[in-house]
Amino acid sequence: MKHFTTPSPYLRLRIDQAGPERKLTALHIVASVEREYAAGLLPAGTRLPPVRVLQHQLGIAKNTVESAYEELVARGLIEGRSRRGYFVRQDHRQRLKPVKPAVSMLFEVPPPRSAASHDRDLIHLGSTFIDHELLPRERLAQCFRAVLKAPGLPAHYSLQGHAPLREIIARRLAKRGIPAKAEDVIITAGSQQALDLVARSLRKRSVAIENPAYGIGKRMFEISQMQMVPLPLDPFDGIDLETWRRRIDAARPAALYLTTNFQNPTGYSYSTGELVHLLELSQELGFGLVEDDWGSDMLSYSDFRPPLRALGGKNVLYLNSFTKKLLPSLRIGYVLANEASRSALLEAKHVATLGNATLVEAALFEFLRRGYYDTHLRALQSELDTRYHACLATLASVMPEGVRWTTPGGGPTLWLELPRRIDLARLGERLLAKKVLLAATPSTWFFGEPHLHGTRLGYAFLPISALQRGLDLLAHEIRRELR
Amino acid sequence: MKHFTTPSPYLRLRIDQAGPERKLTALHIVASVEREYAAGLLPAGTRLPPVRVLQHQLGIAKNTVESAYEELVARGLIEGRSRRGYFVRQDHRQRLKPVKPAVSMLFEVPPPRSAASHDRDLIHLGSTFIDHELLPRERLAQCFRAVLKAPGLPAHYSLQGHAPLREIIARRLAKRGIPAKAEDVIITAGSQQALDLVARSLRKRSVAIENPAYGIGKRMFEISQMQMVPLPLDPFDGIDLETWRRRIDAARPAALYLTTNFQNPTGYSYSTGELVHLLELSQELGFGLVEDDWGSDMLSYSDFRPPLRALGGKNVLYLNSFTKKLLPSLRIGYVLANEASRSALLEAKHVATLGNATLVEAALFEFLRRGYYDTHLRALQSELDTRYHACLATLASVMPEGVRWTTPGGGPTLWLELPRRIDLARLGERLLAKKVLLAATPSTWFFGEPHLHGTRLGYAFLPISALQRGLDLLAHEIRRELR
Repeated sequence: MKHFTTPSPYLRLRIDQAGPERKLTALHIVASVEREYAAGLLPAGTRLPPVRVLQHQLGIAKNTVESAYEELVARGLIEGRSRRGYFVRQDHRQRLKPVKPAVSMLFEVPPPRSAASHDRDLIHLGSTFIDHELLPRERLAQCFRAVLKAPGLPAHYSLQGHAPLREIIARRLAKRGIPAKAEDVIITAGSQQALDLVARSLRKRSVAIENPAYGIGKRMFEISQMQMVPLPLDPFDGIDLETWRRRIDAARPAALYLTTNFQNPTGYSYSTGELVHLLELSQELGFGLVEDDWGSDMLSYSDFRPPLRALGGKNVLYLNSFTKKLLPSLRIGYVLANEASRSALLEAKHVATLGNATLVEAALFEFLRRGYYDTHLRALQSELDTRYHACLATLASVMPEGVRWTTPGGGPTLWLELPRRIDLARLGERLLAKKVLLAATPSTWFFGEPHLHGTRLGYAFLPISALQRGLDLLAHEIRRELR
Repeated sequence: MKHFTTPSPYLRLRIDQAGPERKLTALHIVASVEREYAAGLLPAGTRLPPVRVLQHQLGIAKNTVESAYEELVARGLIEGRSRRGYFVRQDHRQRLKPVKPAVSMLFEVPPPRSAASHDRDLIHLGSTFIDHELLPRERLAQCFRAVLKAPGLPAHYSLQGHAPLREIIARRLAKRGIPAKAEDVIITAGSQQALDLVARSLRKRSVAIENPAYGIGKRMFEISQMQMVPLPLDPFDGIDLETWRRRIDAARPAALYLTTNFQNPTGYSYSTGELVHLLELSQELGFGLVEDDWGSDMLSYSDFRPPLRALGGKNVLYLNSFTKKLLPSLRIGYVLANEASRSALLEAKHVATLGNATLVEAALFEFLRRGYYDTHLRALQSELDTRYHACLATLASVMPEGVRWTTPGGGPTLWLELPRRIDLARLGERLLAKKVLLAATPSTWFFGEPHLHGTRLGYAFLPISALQRGLDLLAHEIRRELR
């Protein structure tokens, strides 16, 4: 057993329990060891359990174990070594087989992930993250400290999520036109887990999804072996309802998953008219709606556009997250369910993670309760507005003819569409050489041949000077490609 | 749109982007609104986006938006209301369809979950949890405070898990005879997520599993639609290798999932001889091994029995967790992978939760780094020993003839086997009336007709006086059933 170093391991023996008389004697131990020895299960030279271990385990007297070991020594199966315990005897080595290694399993090997670099000097032009200098890291730390002042940490987790957090989320949703009960709020590890729980719970294993799609959502459906029905989305022209109807009608998916505000990667927000049409379509063709609303509170106005859940009522499953806007490292989102889905989603969460860290949920509750979140959002929105306008102004001044971009009005990204004759892969490589990183490759987002020819631009991640420098370099390389 | 209260929501319009000339004029806005109006997409009486909203979104001048709205007023489509903005005109109501509610989706409805009561007066005789009075809640709070002293919180999460935590886990594993590299450690939300990631990643959708099995693991495989090959485990007699070989040979599962120490619900630990045989069987029949080692560090001796991963090498996937022993609310476990599985498991984690809360991972690292964990384990083991022996002594003194129990020697539970003529369901009901709660029903653990007739007893959760009282009441009801 040469794989082991200190401390010295010992065999675990199988001591057969006593019969009906229930009292374990030394002879039971001897018989058990003999049986294992005869079966070739005790590699020579390995250590038997220390006397105190068997004594403790079996709840018997020390001298019962000692007399059993003495008997085994007398029978020639084991030997005592001074101060080191009892060992299986060496001269029986030939009867023992060497331990064979375990067999390797076959795993689904995923395609290589995008080589997103962590080089801090890179300008990430395509990030969906918000500059972490804009995130309330100190205020959150205060809330953690406040929660930690209570004696000791909360010992248990909650499957559904910390009740006060679910209560305050429900109240906040009601203020935004979505009647919600705390019992329908299920806390998740970001909206990613929320989407995963929905996918795990749907009876029919097929879902309609935007094309281009949020890459990790698309990948999740793939890994979950759900059939996907891609529906083309054009951030300049919106959706073509007739095409959507035809494809949904042909495939009859269980649900349509859509990001109603600031869709990733296009930055598109659905018009109220489109949402109303989709509700009608859902009635006509009998599919459910799963709304990912990660972005609407990145819009810098106190008024709001009604989410799909507000328009379509409680059958719309509604997902949201605090992580992007508040702090990615918190990993907290939620799904707003309904009576028909709640128990299935809870059961899916139960088998996936049992529950998430209670302290984080309690600290987020404190952050919301104190009103920090609203204050934070106002400041964040104002700064994002500034960056958005700087981005639009820079694009207008540096981009050549033939380049177009969307004006999402909020959220962290917009879509930049380039002339078809530009080679996107080569453009990405040339920019990387200049330390500018574009977003993921088209295959991450699109199904089949992309109907768009461009990339996602993130203006929330970069300080304005870095954004301008990145766009300058991008425009320079685009001009070079167009030459 | 009567569902909304304050603040007043507004429509999101789809403003068609300008053509090649790229400059958006008032006429583009007018044409876009007219198009949506004609399509019946603008419900009468609803509010248009405030001027400043469109101005901001489109990055254009305020008077461009104003002149567009004035033109729409002139064309009779909208009307201005003093200080309240622009609204779609009422007298076109008849052209508009009411919004239809979304369609309800079909979810897999799970069977009712066990009615685990949160009544604090109940004596939970079957809990696998450790009394939270024995958990280092204040020491952990200190570690959180220490991490929070760094300016601000960590902003980002790590897909694989906080690197220093992975490093220290690898070093600790090496000390226990398991060579490990930090790059093979993947942090998870408890060992539950670790098991879920393995299940998601296996190419062949079938797995062999102990019968009786850890209930939430069994449920996870069911929900994941994996075929299960149940293998009988008897905590008194161990495993019958011939039966296991025959069943595995017939079904050829991808892997065998087993809990090598203190199996839930039986409390059984595999002997080294059995583990060696299983390694041989894995070679012979070509299946992989997934070892759940949640319990071995609940054994109160500095020496140790080699885990399967130590005996069988790196092809054994090894799962462990800190939550039960340290604090359930932390939800931190890990899987020790290998080259063949790492990328698949990471990809599975990526789509499941993206990552887990960084602060919790950093605080756990601090806890391990300071040596608190080893100190805690020593104190915990000593207290569990005391409770274990109190449990054995009480059982021996109160249980009637015909009742048997196992002597696991560590871990939080043992198996109590009762005479067949006792009606377990009725026994559970009678005890509940006396405020004693037994563990889950047999169907949670067993496949088909149970070959055992008993229940899991937890001696780690209850103070000794409560444990003794619970066992007294249990023995009383058993005697009554036997009469």
